[in-house]
Amino acid sequence: MVILGIDPGYAIVGWGVVDVTGGRFRPIACGDISTPAHTPLSARLKTIHDEMCRIIEKYKPAQVAMEELFFNTNITTGIKVAEARGVILLAAEEYGLPMYEYTPLQVKQAVVGYGLAEKKQVIAMVTSLLHLKQPPKPDDTADALAVALCHGQTCGSGIAAYFNK
Amino acid sequence: MVILGIDPGYAIVGWGVVDVTGGRFRPIACGDISTPAHTPLSARLKTIHDEMCRIIEKYKPAQVAMEELFFNTNITTGIKVAEARGVILLAAEEYGLPMYEYTPLQVKQAVVGYGLAEKKQVIAMVTSLLHLKQPPKPDDTADALAVALCHGQTCGSGIAAYFNK
Repeated sequence: MVILGIDPGYAIVGWGVVDVTGGRFRPIACGDISTPAHTPLSARLKTIHDEMCRIIEKYKPAQVAMEELFFNTNITTGIKVAEARGVILLAAEEYGLPMYEYTPLQVKQAVVGYGLAEKKQVIAMVTSLLHLKQPPKPDDTADALAVALCHGQTCGSGIAAYFNK
Repeated sequence: MVILGIDPGYAIVGWGVVDVTGGRFRPIACGDISTPAHTPLSARLKTIHDEMCRIIEKYKPAQVAMEELFFNTNITTGIKVAEARGVILLAAEEYGLPMYEYTPLQVKQAVVGYGLAEKKQVIAMVTSLLHLKQPPKPDDTADALAVALCHGQTCGSGIAAYFNK
């Protein structure tokens, strides 16, 4: 099964496509959608939506997994990230793809085995599990691959909850 | 100039179209987009996006004004409203429409003349200013018309700020 993992944002959206078959993970593609600062947010949202559609059409994932929004910084930033999440959810819905979401703690627990793992540990495990020659850049891309791996492990165990709230 | 006012939400989006010419306001149409509870949020977002596009195509506004998100309730609700705002901003951008936004305080100040006015005062003023036979229902629709009126007054005075953050 092909999974598209997403680390949402409005300046950078990390994305990673992973194939999970028989408990084995194979990387297909990854990257980031970067939107220029000093442009209206609505224009940045359109870029994110359009690029998400392009990625879905190109890699044809069966399911999408996204990192849950966690308000650990400021409200203004959080609102803009949530607005970006809105257009990402829309893109998945337009292609009829089920969307799952995971907290950062769940992602770290699944990938590193420790919910409070540091970012560099997550990146090292993603690089190792996917047999990558070097760590994915930027970190948002590594995070997106981590979410895809988390979903791949979780859906195999049957405990994934369809995003419905 | 035709203005589309929006009161964003994920369960109910209020909308109102008002023509502003020479300082005079004329109501064109108003209503609400209601999305059923107990359906995945992504499906609700698609309904909101599709209906927004339909409204823009039908009434051809020149500008869109939306109420700014104010976190006065809980974070979970606020995130979902922000996700809905994301797809509304996207719809406006897809039609090349400039988007302006106003705080609830600015809307009340513009429509009632008092930033801390109660909701029923806002509804009464919207009904009066637009010469409506009865108050718009639901309240979200009245709020959307209030935002359109606020923008109509503000852009006439040249103090509207293009939404760019």
